[in-house]
Amino acid sequence: MSLVIVGSLAFDTIETPFARRERVIGGSATYCALAASFFTSPKIVGVVGRDFPPAILRFFKSRRIDTQGVEIRPGKTFFWEGRYGYDPNMRETLKTELNVFQDFQPELPPSYRRANIVFLANIDPDLQERILSQIQSPALVAMDTINFWIAHKPDPLWRVMGQVDIFFANEEEIKMLTQETNLIRAGKKVLAKGPRLVIVKKGEHGALLLTRDFVFGVLGHPCEDVVDPTGAGDSFAGGFLGYLDRAGKLSRSEIRRAAVYGSVLASFVIEDFSIERLKTLRRKDIEERFNEFRRLVSF
Amino acid sequence: MSLVIVGSLAFDTIETPFARRERVIGGSATYCALAASFFTSPKIVGVVGRDFPPAILRFFKSRRIDTQGVEIRPGKTFFWEGRYGYDPNMRETLKTELNVFQDFQPELPPSYRRANIVFLANIDPDLQERILSQIQSPALVAMDTINFWIAHKPDPLWRVMGQVDIFFANEEEIKMLTQETNLIRAGKKVLAKGPRLVIVKKGEHGALLLTRDFVFGVLGHPCEDVVDPTGAGDSFAGGFLGYLDRAGKLSRSEIRRAAVYGSVLASFVIEDFSIERLKTLRRKDIEERFNEFRRLVSF
Repeated sequence: MSLVIVGSLAFDTIETPFARRERVIGGSATYCALAASFFTSPKIVGVVGRDFPPAILRFFKSRRIDTQGVEIRPGKTFFWEGRYGYDPNMRETLKTELNVFQDFQPELPPSYRRANIVFLANIDPDLQERILSQIQSPALVAMDTINFWIAHKPDPLWRVMGQVDIFFANEEEIKMLTQETNLIRAGKKVLAKGPRLVIVKKGEHGALLLTRDFVFGVLGHPCEDVVDPTGAGDSFAGGFLGYLDRAGKLSRSEIRRAAVYGSVLASFVIEDFSIERLKTLRRKDIEERFNEFRRLVSF
Repeated sequence: MSLVIVGSLAFDTIETPFARRERVIGGSATYCALAASFFTSPKIVGVVGRDFPPAILRFFKSRRIDTQGVEIRPGKTFFWEGRYGYDPNMRETLKTELNVFQDFQPELPPSYRRANIVFLANIDPDLQERILSQIQSPALVAMDTINFWIAHKPDPLWRVMGQVDIFFANEEEIKMLTQETNLIRAGKKVLAKGPRLVIVKKGEHGALLLTRDFVFGVLGHPCEDVVDPTGAGDSFAGGFLGYLDRAGKLSRSEIRRAAVYGSVLASFVIEDFSIERLKTLRRKDIEERFNEFRRLVSF
C-alpha cells in the first residue's frame, strides 16, 4: 500500500517546567512521517523555507520517506512556540508564525495521487479538502485538527469530516467540537457525520478508539520523565497509519494492533526533545515496548 | 478468608450539573462493603446516628454483610455535601458534618480481630492506626486517604502507610502527598515507604497499579451517562478486596483480575445516585462487564 502524510514541517521553541529548547525541528508531518517510517515508506507533503536544514530532508530520505512533495520556498519555515505545564497535557501556544505555510497550496506529485492511505494533519480544513480532492480513490483517509480550526472554521471542518474514515482529536477538542461534556457521546456525534473510527488522544491516559461496533482502549506508557510532549499525537497517528499501511488490511484486530503501535511510538517521542528519540529508536525497541503494552493490560 | 472494612456510613447531598439528591445513603464503608458483598461476606466497622434508616442495615445483612461492628449512637449520622462539575473527576466539598463520627473510637468485635484482609477507608490516619492495632495478624492491609488528611496530618499518614500493604489514592492526592508531578515517581515514593502495591484511581481514565515488579493498568468503562461519581473509588476498593478475599491468594494474576473487578464495580455505581445501582446489580451483570473489559483492551 502507500501512505501520504500532509502537514507541517516546522521550527519549534519548546518550554517545559524543566528546560527550554529554541528552534528545534518539529511539525506534524515531520513527527508523523518519522513514526510511520518504522513500518512503511511514507510520502510527505509540506512546505519549508530556505532556512530549513537540508540535513533533515536527507535524514528523511535515509528513512525511506519520500520528500518529493516537500516544497522549498523563499522565506522562513513555519514556527511554533509553546509552553507545557507540570501536567504535560497542559499546553499553551505562545507564538505561531505561518511564514511560507501562509500560501501553501500544494499540487501533489503524480505518484502521490494513487495513495491508499492519506493523513491530513491539523491544517486549515479548506486546505485539507483541496488536497484530498487530488487523491484518486484512497482506501482510507484520516484527519486531525486543533482547537483553532474548531473555533474559527467549524463548518469547513465538519464538511471535510464527512469525507474521511478516521477522525483524530484530543479529548478537549472533540468535546469542544461536539459541544458534549461526555467523551462517548462526543464520539458518537462524530461517528454520525461520516467517520467510521474516532480516535481520542488522551495524553498520558492513552487513547480511546470508538467505532459503531466496538470500543478499544489503549493506555499510555507509564513514563517517569516526560521530556517534551510535542509530537506525541502526530507520532501516534504515524505509528497507527504506518502499521496499517504495512498490514495492508483494516480488520478489527489490525486496527487494535495499530493503535498500540501508535501509543508505543508516542511513548518514545516524549522521552526527548524534538525528534531526537526517533533518531536513535530501533525496530527492536518498538517490538519490546509493544510487548510491554500487552503485559500492562493483560489479565 | 475474611475482610474487615472500616469507614463511614453517611448521608450525602449530591449535586451534579444535571440533578440534585438530598440526604441519600452514602459513606466509604457503605460503598466498599456493598461492592465486596458480590464476592465475599465482609464485616463492616462504622458508626451511625439514630437517624440512620434501619432498613439500610437490614439491607446490608441481606447481602451477608456483618454489621456487628456498626455502632448506633445517639445523635446524627455523618453528613457530606458535594458538587460535581461536567468533568466527573472534579469534585467540590460544600459541607461536612462529622456528627457521631466525631468521637468514633471503635472496639472491634472479637470475630473481627482475626480478619485476613483489612480495608481502612479515608478516615483520620491516627484512627486508622488505632483500629489496625486491634487486628491480630492480617495477611493484607489496605488503606485509602483524602486531601484533607494529606494537608492536615501528613506525619500520621506516612506512619500508618508504613504498616500497610496496599495504598489507594487518586491521582491528585498521591501527587500532593509525595510532592511529585509525575505519577510514576509519586508511586515509587510511596512504594519506598512500605506498601507493596499502590493503586492510583484516575476516575474515567481507570486505575494504575504500581508494584516494585510490575505495572498494571485498567481502563474505566466507557460510560455515556455518569449519573453520580460518588462512591466509585470505594466501590473499586470493595470489588478489588472482595475478589481477593474470595480468591484466597495474592498472586499477580489474581491482583490483576481483582483490579478489573474493582473497575467493574466502580463502573456500575456511577450509573445511578447513591447505592441504587448496587441494589439491582446481579453477579451475572458483573461477569458480563468483566468480559467487556477484556475485549476493551485485548489486541
